Amino acid sequence: MYSFSDTSLQLQDRLVRFMDDYIYPNERAHAEQLDHADNRFAPLPLIDQLKDKAKQAGLWNLFVTPELSHFADHPGLSHFDYAPLAEIMGRVLWSPEVFNCNAPDTGNMEVLMKYGNADQQATWLTPLLNGDIRSCYCMTEPDTACSDATNVQLQIRRDGDEWVLNGRKWFITNAFHERSKILIVMGKSDPDNPNRHQQQSQVLVPKETPGVELVRPLSTLGYDDAPLGHAEVHFNNVRVPLGNMLLGEGRGFEIAQGRLGPGRIHHCMRLIGVAQRSLELACQRAESRATFGRPLSQHQSVREDIARCFSEIEMARLLLLKTCRQMDQHGTQGALDLIAASKTTVPRLVQNIIDRCMQIHGAGGLTADYCMAEGFNYARWCRLADGPDQVHEMTLGKTIIRRYADQNGAAS
Amino acid sequence: MYSFSDTSLQLQDRLVRFMDDYIYPNERAHAEQLDHADNRFAPLPLIDQLKDKAKQAGLWNLFVTPELSHFADHPGLSHFDYAPLAEIMGRVLWSPEVFNCNAPDTGNMEVLMKYGNADQQATWLTPLLNGDIRSCYCMTEPDTACSDATNVQLQIRRDGDEWVLNGRKWFITNAFHERSKILIVMGKSDPDNPNRHQQQSQVLVPKETPGVELVRPLSTLGYDDAPLGHAEVHFNNVRVPLGNMLLGEGRGFEIAQGRLGPGRIHHCMRLIGVAQRSLELACQRAESRATFGRPLSQHQSVREDIARCFSEIEMARLLLLKTCRQMDQHGTQGALDLIAASKTTVPRLVQNIIDRCMQIHGAGGLTADYCMAEGFNYARWCRLADGPDQVHEMTLGKTIIRRYADQNGAAS
Amino acid sequence: MYSFSDTSLQLQDRLVRFMDDYIYPNERAHAEQLDHADNRFAPLPLIDQLKDKAKQAGLWNLFVTPELSHFADHPGLSHFDYAPLAEIMGRVLWSPEVFNCNAPDTGNMEVLMKYGNADQQATWLTPLLNGDIRSCYCMTEPDTACSDATNVQLQIRRDGDEWVLNGRKWFITNAFHERSKILIVMGKSDPDNPNRHQQQSQVLVPKETPGVELVRPLSTLGYDDAPLGHAEVHFNNVRVPLGNMLLGEGRGFEIAQGRLGPGRIHHCMRLIGVAQRSLELACQRAESRATFGRPLSQHQSVREDIARCFSEIEMARLLLLKTCRQMDQHGTQGALDLIAASKTTVPRLVQNIIDRCMQIHGAGGLTADYCMAEGFNYARWCRLADGPDQVHEMTLGKTIIRRYADQNGAAS
Amino acid sequence: MYSFSDTSLQLQDRLVRFMDDYIYPNERAHAEQLDHADNRFAPLPLIDQLKDKAKQAGLWNLFVTPELSHFADHPGLSHFDYAPLAEIMGRVLWSPEVFNCNAPDTGNMEVLMKYGNADQQATWLTPLLNGDIRSCYCMTEPDTACSDATNVQLQIRRDGDEWVLNGRKWFITNAFHERSKILIVMGKSDPDNPNRHQQQSQVLVPKETPGVELVRPLSTLGYDDAPLGHAEVHFNNVRVPLGNMLLGEGRGFEIAQGRLGPGRIHHCMRLIGVAQRSLELACQRAESRATFGRPLSQHQSVREDIARCFSEIEMARLLLLKTCRQMDQHGTQGALDLIAASKTTVPRLVQNIIDRCMQIHGAGGLTADYCMAEGFNYARWCRLADGPDQVHEMTLGKTIIRRYADQNGAAS
Repeated sequence: MYSFSDTSLQLQDRLVRFMDDYIYPNERAHAEQLDHADNRFAPLPLIDQLKDKAKQAGLWNLFVTPELSHFADHPGLSHFDYAPLAEIMGRVLWSPEVFNCNAPDTGNMEVLMKYGNADQQATWLTPLLNGDIRSCYCMTEPDTACSDATNVQLQIRRDGDEWVLNGRKWFITNAFHERSKILIVMGKSDPDNPNRHQQQSQVLVPKETPGVELVRPLSTLGYDDAPLGHAEVHFNNVRVPLGNMLLGEGRGFEIAQGRLGPGRIHHCMRLIGVAQRSLELACQRAESRATFGRPLSQHQSVREDIARCFSEIEMARLLLLKTCRQMDQHGTQGALDLIAASKTTVPRLVQNIIDRCMQIHGAGGLTADYCMAEGFNYARWCRLADGPDQVHEMTLGKTIIRRYADQNGAAS
Repeated sequence: MYSFSDTSLQLQDRLVRFMDDYIYPNERAHAEQLDHADNRFAPLPLIDQLKDKAKQAGLWNLFVTPELSHFADHPGLSHFDYAPLAEIMGRVLWSPEVFNCNAPDTGNMEVLMKYGNADQQATWLTPLLNGDIRSCYCMTEPDTACSDATNVQLQIRRDGDEWVLNGRKWFITNAFHERSKILIVMGKSDPDNPNRHQQQSQVLVPKETPGVELVRPLSTLGYDDAPLGHAEVHFNNVRVPLGNMLLGEGRGFEIAQGRLGPGRIHHCMRLIGVAQRSLELACQRAESRATFGRPLSQHQSVREDIARCFSEIEMARLLLLKTCRQMDQHGTQGALDLIAASKTTVPRLVQNIIDRCMQIHGAGGLTADYCMAEGFNYARWCRLADGPDQVHEMTLGKTIIRRYADQNGAAS
Repeated sequence: MYSFSDTSLQLQDRLVRFMDDYIYPNERAHAEQLDHADNRFAPLPLIDQLKDKAKQAGLWNLFVTPELSHFADHPGLSHFDYAPLAEIMGRVLWSPEVFNCNAPDTGNMEVLMKYGNADQQATWLTPLLNGDIRSCYCMTEPDTACSDATNVQLQIRRDGDEWVLNGRKWFITNAFHERSKILIVMGKSDPDNPNRHQQQSQVLVPKETPGVELVRPLSTLGYDDAPLGHAEVHFNNVRVPLGNMLLGEGRGFEIAQGRLGPGRIHHCMRLIGVAQRSLELACQRAESRATFGRPLSQHQSVREDIARCFSEIEMARLLLLKTCRQMDQHGTQGALDLIAASKTTVPRLVQNIIDRCMQIHGAGGLTADYCMAEGFNYARWCRLADGPDQVHEMTLGKTIIRRYADQNGAAS
Repeated sequence: MYSFSDTSLQLQDRLVRFMDDYIYPNERAHAEQLDHADNRFAPLPLIDQLKDKAKQAGLWNLFVTPELSHFADHPGLSHFDYAPLAEIMGRVLWSPEVFNCNAPDTGNMEVLMKYGNADQQATWLTPLLNGDIRSCYCMTEPDTACSDATNVQLQIRRDGDEWVLNGRKWFITNAFHERSKILIVMGKSDPDNPNRHQQQSQVLVPKETPGVELVRPLSTLGYDDAPLGHAEVHFNNVRVPLGNMLLGEGRGFEIAQGRLGPGRIHHCMRLIGVAQRSLELACQRAESRATFGRPLSQHQSVREDIARCFSEIEMARLLLLKTCRQMDQHGTQGALDLIAASKTTVPRLVQNIIDRCMQIHGAGGLTADYCMAEGFNYARWCRLADGPDQVHEMTLGKTIIRRYADQNGAAS
């Protein structure tokens, strides 16, 4: 029904081989390096080695789209062509960093490519594209529901030649990572602006700036997601030069809108990868494990569960691909309905798919012996990341009602 | 992501106009003619008038595929190109007959096109293609689970120059319809054949043949589905000439396999049409109805329900289109996994979608004032028609397990 | 965990025997009398015969509670003690009328017992208690969402010695029933009253009063629920004497509140009966039907479905019994949370339970050969009757939030 | 509907006060002691202090039933009377140990009370009842599906005056706990016995015995459940005296049966406590958090979610209480159907309840700031502990089918 470009197909082949050669065989090593690390947020030697190999293999910065390809070593991939690549990476949750394709760095690089000036790009974008540093995006706050981005409370006040930041953020991925050097911070610079979409600005804050306080790491369902992690970060009279403003004062909301579309579907792509791998694991388990005198694979209910997983993965993938195509052709703004549909549907489906696959494994299915438990946490988290599903369903429902409510009687 | 042929697009336009001009405005008239009919299984004058108009509009026998197009007045439509047309027809459940595209006649015509000889085609196929007569497909039996087609028990015995049929069938759609003239009957002609897929034959039985007993109409969830209906039919020493055998003795299972793939996806296409229309109705209701001081459309839970309906319809449609494409390119046998996925997923999704849309309507949502209740029944019935979901999930699960169980360790 | 009174236990025994002796053996006869009736809303001879037998067996008006027992021939049964009796009756949906325990007559009798004056009781209550006439309760309107009872629009205007009614109602059960003689009609008598709960009145309207127009029967899914039925009823300048006011002007809302609690849980009791019988049927089917070489009962997924049905029926029954106990001890007002919990939970559970049981039966499961399809319709309808689930969940949610929101920190 | 004994009611009061005074205020301290522990499996000073207080308060060993009360300082509590106490403890997952009521120690103490001889009781039961040591129950194996207990593979071979154990176990809770001193090990002592329920024995193995190898801790989702933990344990030629056999050779299966009933319902009791607390937290959040200009509590979908949580908790609790009552009156063997119903229903309901409550909290809902994420993991784990739900549903389904399949036609 759909076909990927030759470029994408070749990259898929190459990526599959890379996964077979370097990623799957290193899963245990990765777990052990992390388990025995003195500092769980330090870079892992293994990752650094693999990053070099990925660069050499031309599997680097694949997330860059054609219109931004002057920043990359390749001609750019449409969302549609990138989707199967991100899905493959999603099969091992730590692998996207190996290809410099991990959140939130990809989204931050896009922000810098689209909205950064030459200075900002030279200082921060170049090392990010090289994979030399990591970055943070500071949006969510503990005290307000930031699913409504206009709720952001962190204060950005001008004082002479500097912006002064005060406020609290949390769920700041990468903040504890030792290589993380730069924070993009969303806050309110003009709280009294009558246009509530022009009250916000985004400012670049080097992590080492005095007043940036990493309060504590946060876990989700028991996972600290090291070495990236999610941190609570306080900004106590943090001062940066005026030149650290992105795009312009009062344009923070605009940047946020531009950033979030691709971010959401990248999560969905990777989730489909975890789901697909969980299904494959469940099939292998069903064949190799016997209860009550028969292999699991001969139990009718196991077959039904497998069948549902297959059908749901197919549907999730198709919805996502359609969303990608729509974004490629009409931009984020022209695909808001499908982005919302994917954002609210794919993580929920994937959570249930993995839940079933874990169950087929018995108690071992919940352990770190498989990718499933961590993938389950990822899916569960994506139902809240970038705003709870309910917020997106509200907007989507409103759009759909408006679309059909005025039809003439013939359709009724 | 996908695009229909120009032919399909033009037909979609024409069909939408036909629905607007002739079908929607006649929904009430159709209901009244049926309500006041002396015989609910007699042809409705309205349908006959509309059939003429549809023929004139070139909206006739659209289900015919390119490789069988010598039987039609058009060059044939792939499953993929036919899908949106069947979806549009599905918005009014009695409308497919207007376009000579209703089950089970389409499947029966396909059987005659593919497996009938010239005589059989002249006698039965031509009037069917003209819409002059209707037909039945006699597979399901009350006494055995015919989801396993080899279970069929009806006896087909040769006696001199005749086949003699004895046995009981039920859920024989169209049997009570006054214009229904011909039954395709599946039975066992060689019960001792060691190959259990060669024990069955299919025989053409004119409805008026002595011994064909229409025992009673059956209802599903209160619906008699008149004027087509579902009947219990007994065959008591029914005698037909040897020439009435289709394709050849012992080839009944083969015919059944060939027939069922398209039949299943045609149901799914129409179901998506009902679901889509239910969603549109729910949007209109949400906007026009107020409770507790606000229109329903402003209630968060209504918006969530609408959003889920939208996402699920998108996914169901995409899954179905991919299935069609696969069938077009690789035949039914090359698309068994996706056919099973569609067959088991689409009706279940649609049942839930309509359930929500009825709920948004309040008590009126369950009445015949809307298409929803009957569509709900249709979806529910499709979860059992051509075999319960569980049977197809069993086969699909088995296939998927086999596909992935042998992967090497790298993927695990 | 709980124990019924000896009286209830003895009545349960007697009722089970009555069902075995007279109800189950007459299910086919009932269906046939109805199928062949000239008028589907005429009393069935079978029902009349069985009513006599039930009276003789002392199985009559069992719904009457102790505080109203002076109206009955027995000392009254608490809701708790009545629950298992109503459950048994629920196994055959037409049977409650045999015991004069069917909706809406029971609720109407309660209204007359509690709020009627001596004249009103003599004229209408006595023949209702005798089972000589049937009655209607006219609340729901097609044009407004009457789940908010204050929305009622039907106009009750005083004109001299008469009340004049104008407006439209629908879903008026029993209205077409030939023996139905009296309508209790809720309307607005004082639309400008600042207290919106005192704007409504309830008035007794003999069905034969000029201006009472039975517009049409309504169906839910495909059921007309004959011989009771659900009607759309218009009131066109309907005039009744002032003495037909119930309780007093402006007290209509109060009556509605008093009536609805028991009505809702009676539905739930009967639904549990249908669900229980469906489960038993599914068990029998699972044992007697084979597919793919094994009885259904040996398929793991069938066993899982049966297990879930069992567990859910247990839970639904327990929730309902607790609700009954609470009502017995603290009245409807003291049990609003549990009534709402039962009202929104039991029908949904039962709908799903029956759905599974039908599926285990294959195509036959949807037909009138079993009680399941009609029970499914009953459960579906109860999710809208007396207000959609969502309305009750709104109220219940609000109550629960208020209950826990103020707890001190210790509990958090 | 049900009432607890005065003893239970008084204990509930006392326990609620203890939680308010000592447990809730120490939740943060507990988390910090664990986070900063050098060894996460060492006893926490806080727990030791609280244990002393609980003993003084008479809140100690409350799980002991009346027939075993000679082992306790109190007259014993029925399962029914204990249920609300365990529910209260369940609100803080680490609190049961404070009252010496935590799994698996309670189950192990029961085994020793019921099946241990005087020597075994003096050596191991007494310190366990005092809370001085901890214990393990070694049933589950990595290589076989031990949901079928006869599958156990660990070898118990007699060699002179000793039993020699060889094999692998996993999910051995408490194994890494520093105070854990004794393992009850299930294995096969007579693999060729024609009665497959007499092949197993259970043997007491001091943890310090040579050959007992603690291989690694296991996590579920992201939790290590320290300081109890779940371990993989290998037995390499582990030798214990003949006197360490429990009850007698070949009676291991019998012991396992006796142990598992109460264990399963204790988990359910505690899960209901977590669910109840999650609901309360969600109510508080709904009231204190605003999005889009209104508190969450005014969003219709939040109210619906809260309403469903309330109803489902009620039902889960009622099912469990009925199960307890049945066990109290008819023993584990007489309550197998209800135990299976609780075991398969309660964890699933609770998982979904907590999932909704976390969602209402936004991203913070997944963190360790609340009890919910850990409770979610507990519920998820209970769907596999003591055998996956599917195994219990298989048995329950079989029982129910047998119960109803033979009913006479009257009921059908």
